[in-house]
Amino acid sequence: MSCVAELAPIRSAAGEPAPQPCAPGSPRVIVAGATGFAGALAAHLLWRHPRFELVAVTGRSEVGRRLDDLYPRYRVPLMIEPFDLDAHGLLDAAVVAYPHAAAAPTVAELRERGVRVVDLSADFRLARLQTYEQWYGEHPRPELLADAVYGLTELHRERIAAADIVANPGCYPTASLLALAPLARAGLIADVVIDAKQGVSGAGRAFDETTHVSMAGENILPYKVAEHRHTPEIEEQLAPLRAAGGAIDEVAVLFQAHLVPLDQGELADCYVTPTRRVEDAELAELYLAAYEREPFVEVVSAPPGTRDVQETNFCRVFAKADPHSGKVIVLSAIDNLWKGTSSQAVQNLNVMFGHDESEGLR
Amino acid sequence: MSCVAELAPIRSAAGEPAPQPCAPGSPRVIVAGATGFAGALAAHLLWRHPRFELVAVTGRSEVGRRLDDLYPRYRVPLMIEPFDLDAHGLLDAAVVAYPHAAAAPTVAELRERGVRVVDLSADFRLARLQTYEQWYGEHPRPELLADAVYGLTELHRERIAAADIVANPGCYPTASLLALAPLARAGLIADVVIDAKQGVSGAGRAFDETTHVSMAGENILPYKVAEHRHTPEIEEQLAPLRAAGGAIDEVAVLFQAHLVPLDQGELADCYVTPTRRVEDAELAELYLAAYEREPFVEVVSAPPGTRDVQETNFCRVFAKADPHSGKVIVLSAIDNLWKGTSSQAVQNLNVMFGHDESEGLR
Amino acid sequence: MSCVAELAPIRSAAGEPAPQPCAPGSPRVIVAGATGFAGALAAHLLWRHPRFELVAVTGRSEVGRRLDDLYPRYRVPLMIEPFDLDAHGLLDAAVVAYPHAAAAPTVAELRERGVRVVDLSADFRLARLQTYEQWYGEHPRPELLADAVYGLTELHRERIAAADIVANPGCYPTASLLALAPLARAGLIADVVIDAKQGVSGAGRAFDETTHVSMAGENILPYKVAEHRHTPEIEEQLAPLRAAGGAIDEVAVLFQAHLVPLDQGELADCYVTPTRRVEDAELAELYLAAYEREPFVEVVSAPPGTRDVQETNFCRVFAKADPHSGKVIVLSAIDNLWKGTSSQAVQNLNVMFGHDESEGLR
Amino acid sequence: MSCVAELAPIRSAAGEPAPQPCAPGSPRVIVAGATGFAGALAAHLLWRHPRFELVAVTGRSEVGRRLDDLYPRYRVPLMIEPFDLDAHGLLDAAVVAYPHAAAAPTVAELRERGVRVVDLSADFRLARLQTYEQWYGEHPRPELLADAVYGLTELHRERIAAADIVANPGCYPTASLLALAPLARAGLIADVVIDAKQGVSGAGRAFDETTHVSMAGENILPYKVAEHRHTPEIEEQLAPLRAAGGAIDEVAVLFQAHLVPLDQGELADCYVTPTRRVEDAELAELYLAAYEREPFVEVVSAPPGTRDVQETNFCRVFAKADPHSGKVIVLSAIDNLWKGTSSQAVQNLNVMFGHDESEGLR
Repeated sequence: MSCVAELAPIRSAAGEPAPQPCAPGSPRVIVAGATGFAGALAAHLLWRHPRFELVAVTGRSEVGRRLDDLYPRYRVPLMIEPFDLDAHGLLDAAVVAYPHAAAAPTVAELRERGVRVVDLSADFRLARLQTYEQWYGEHPRPELLADAVYGLTELHRERIAAADIVANPGCYPTASLLALAPLARAGLIADVVIDAKQGVSGAGRAFDETTHVSMAGENILPYKVAEHRHTPEIEEQLAPLRAAGGAIDEVAVLFQAHLVPLDQGELADCYVTPTRRVEDAELAELYLAAYEREPFVEVVSAPPGTRDVQETNFCRVFAKADPHSGKVIVLSAIDNLWKGTSSQAVQNLNVMFGHDESEGLR
Repeated sequence: MSCVAELAPIRSAAGEPAPQPCAPGSPRVIVAGATGFAGALAAHLLWRHPRFELVAVTGRSEVGRRLDDLYPRYRVPLMIEPFDLDAHGLLDAAVVAYPHAAAAPTVAELRERGVRVVDLSADFRLARLQTYEQWYGEHPRPELLADAVYGLTELHRERIAAADIVANPGCYPTASLLALAPLARAGLIADVVIDAKQGVSGAGRAFDETTHVSMAGENILPYKVAEHRHTPEIEEQLAPLRAAGGAIDEVAVLFQAHLVPLDQGELADCYVTPTRRVEDAELAELYLAAYEREPFVEVVSAPPGTRDVQETNFCRVFAKADPHSGKVIVLSAIDNLWKGTSSQAVQNLNVMFGHDESEGLR
Repeated sequence: MSCVAELAPIRSAAGEPAPQPCAPGSPRVIVAGATGFAGALAAHLLWRHPRFELVAVTGRSEVGRRLDDLYPRYRVPLMIEPFDLDAHGLLDAAVVAYPHAAAAPTVAELRERGVRVVDLSADFRLARLQTYEQWYGEHPRPELLADAVYGLTELHRERIAAADIVANPGCYPTASLLALAPLARAGLIADVVIDAKQGVSGAGRAFDETTHVSMAGENILPYKVAEHRHTPEIEEQLAPLRAAGGAIDEVAVLFQAHLVPLDQGELADCYVTPTRRVEDAELAELYLAAYEREPFVEVVSAPPGTRDVQETNFCRVFAKADPHSGKVIVLSAIDNLWKGTSSQAVQNLNVMFGHDESEGLR
Repeated sequence: MSCVAELAPIRSAAGEPAPQPCAPGSPRVIVAGATGFAGALAAHLLWRHPRFELVAVTGRSEVGRRLDDLYPRYRVPLMIEPFDLDAHGLLDAAVVAYPHAAAAPTVAELRERGVRVVDLSADFRLARLQTYEQWYGEHPRPELLADAVYGLTELHRERIAAADIVANPGCYPTASLLALAPLARAGLIADVVIDAKQGVSGAGRAFDETTHVSMAGENILPYKVAEHRHTPEIEEQLAPLRAAGGAIDEVAVLFQAHLVPLDQGELADCYVTPTRRVEDAELAELYLAAYEREPFVEVVSAPPGTRDVQETNFCRVFAKADPHSGKVIVLSAIDNLWKGTSSQAVQNLNVMFGHDESEGLR
């Protein structure tokens, strides 16, 4: 073996930390689980946020290491601590970035102290307990399900403002639902196939065959064929929108995911069989009306590349009728780690604490 | 501007050419248009082929430069010449790698000299002149259309063996048709959406925003929404297969293409609404029966990554029923430049000249 | 040819522009040549800057197109205009992002109107006319050379504050000089070899073999061996530093550049033969002392990856003695488009107009 | 956490294995440790080799899985077995692809049975036991050191032909020594700095921060500054060459390694301070003479990109004098997994068993 054993770079620890530049009296927040990609980015966004005070970042590993040593580009000069509510002082809010099943007990503990939570796991995304248990196994805190609000900001802004537990959506449902909501509300979805692609950061800080440059590079990798956990999440959110549009049946979504060789970016191609013939003009009107006041959804007139929204909280949506097949194509591009995860968590925190929704996200 | 003007690397010219290692008496072949990606790879495959003699490579640019200087990794030590049938000596075959409309007159000229042709352009792929003209404009040599055979080897092997003009398929139709043919022949396709992704080599030697590392890297780029030229090619080939399966109607394919940041690789996800309920067991039987004798189609039991077939003539096909939506998903992975273009051209030449179909391709 | 002709994506134009969020009474600035990578990024940084008003972006091509259509991710909603000083209103400053030789006449025109300039070209980087002409040909405006200050902020901050023409350094000299300055000032450089690597954005918006994903991807490409234009720039800046350190001879730098397959990032490895034995402790003291008050130079205790400084104005420097060879290794990592080009231009503008040097760059 | 838990693709197992196409009576060989990158590629090359019979592939993990399931693109349809010399039948040769220290006992066991070995580890590369122990710790089988021949084919072809243990070189020493040997033999090296860069495959099947697309992508990562294990290996091989060139002193090599974001490829830039002034003409003559009969070393007239030799056993060498600094620059490009590791192992096996040295490698 040639060069295998030789490699052990240590990333760099920089100098003295600058203080956080937030306004005095800002809500005090922690990120629990800041060693993963999602938690680290949430910490980065909250550290530079003018109206939240990031008082601690916690981790189950890497304790005692500085976060800007683990993630130099995020430049958060806080030490990673064990999660300990007696140590962090009074808190107003927390972002919980644990895997599913591990998150719920922590959310419960935070709620007992009166801390408002944005949970990045799947634990509170599904309203129906039965659906959760079918896909994820036993739920550790089913009694809290009723308190949680689904955190797709554009769909549930009012309820999020008052919520104590916000279940941040998965990245795939975020892109898919923003693409489909206007059609659903207009009663236009008879059937839908979603083909989604995302960068390798979607696999998180997992070190395996799916993330190694020599295997994930130069590859297009479909996975979880006909069994992706995001299907029920999309269906559950789509149902009331379709009902509002007059639908009386249910629609069985076919969702297919792929990894492609880039870091951050996600595109959802939604292929909709409409309930009646639809033209481009009607689509344009429908989407512009739906999103004209949204600060982070851009309806565009040409197919969006994911690079266009990389490292932003924006979602770009493009809708087009295909007269040949009679179908409607809706493309939705986001950054899976930003709008798909961590910047949407901050967007929700802004809503929960009465800040301008764009604060810290431009 | 910092470093822009400073960059002008010259690629390297290596030493004396080794002679081509082909058998004496092998058919004499040229590649016309060897400066593009498709032609250069065809030249590479024919140069190392034991049963074809590559006598010339031609180009409309780069004349006088050696092909292994332009494409070092292909190691073909021939000088690029102008296309001139009086200069190349007696020929048995030619691969024509020109853009559409430019190819047809050259094909005609070759046919007048009795040279058998594999044409990589779109000029002879569509049997119906009207369809060609709708998508590509006026056809330069419509009288030759009747002589051409569609070069998807697995579908038309017998006719290719006797053909004088083989119209090599597009890469997207190659992947899509190999995915769909078994279902079509079984009368199982009521409706189909194809979502295809490929590496940047699919854009060829085009130097523009779609191929620049700084723009195509870290990007997923959908293009030609609801207007891709490969749609009619797929439909025209699918029609007789479906008819053989008992279909009496036509199916309007929805095809959507994307560029992803890798060099070579292509995945077609085919979402089929079947004419009746289909289970995995039936699919397995159907696909294994269809391809068990095919040297280059592999029916696999797990989703194929494109890396698995990179730089090979293989196509990997995976079919799965989705009981939730009732649809069938068929994934098809190829190397867009190999099976999608140039190695399929060699596969066809093998068939045309009575060689083992795998000769020079393992 | 398979898929070549099919690709013509149009990037997207978004909705109404938001107004620029700068303070009233801010200096009015334009970017001349905003269609290239360097100019576009400068425009992006100035648009979001709280204390400059970006009043126009100009281009010699793409006139009438919006900059956020050409570069969606930079989100500058200004129309690209022809350069016309009668049209842009009163100006305080300009960033000129033209190629060398084209820049000097524009700089002259701006100076005649009293506009202060940061020039990104090579035209005013070299103090000696003779050196310029040896590497770049005739100088269009040699009479202005004496007015220009070399814009490596950390070396010439005071003179930049008063300058009318700031010659922004090349990206390679930026990384190299920040690595070498402390050693030079201490009289420790007897000899130096610089091996630099950067991402493909260093080649700018050039569409050719060096930037195509299929050629630049999976490649490490050395270029301009023993003839790189940045050598004299580095030597000219190093000379007075070495003289201050007591050197009486000159040092002939060997500089070698490479392209590697990423977008933005640059690493300069400087191999110094010291004038006397040097230990790690002395190096640490030397570098910390040199940079402890610098807001954008970080002396780090482990080898820096370029990802650590991507999309920032930071330079990370790491110095280590090699007792085996007796040499000193200094590694310097920057983002070639940011600190190497456009964000350093903004850093210089901050200095020129009395703003906090970090304004708009955190 | 968004999508982390959702990803568990299974790679594909294809159909029935084709038999290996080797000549009857070919030497019987195994690859011990075929689950890593180096071993898997060696197995691939030996499987398609016309004059070796690959009878088994072994692994300490993944036993019972087929190698073409673990590495689909290598298409070796053998089951991974435990290493067991009683089970593999009579053997003529083995490639051992274990980490250092683990390799030596296996090599010893093979030698006891009379099996000739190419060892890919560092265990037998260094002739001096003391040097080994300084860098790698205690040597498990020091008594075998005297039997081993250093397997840089171009330097030790005759001794390799007769050797029982061939210590395959590291990838960095391979590129570096082929670059430096002609200068060393001519007595021209007074001092040398080597700056080497390679793709992520050089880190092997290690799943960590250095190989994850989200960390290694868009990064240039220097590592092991002033402490790389390949330094003594290069020095030990360089010493007799320099002695043959009349040198009486030793040279202390400074070697620096980097990871860049590609899969396979390696470039070594050698900066030589010559013992006297050297011109380009002399360099050209020296290198052409040294390598004119070498089947796998190409002396080129322009800087080589690593892509030019990717997936080949070739090394491209380019030498140039820099009149400005008086130094000589030699660039050497290889594929780190091929000529740098596994294809050089096959080249050595060819030599050991009297085959044409290029057999199975074109």
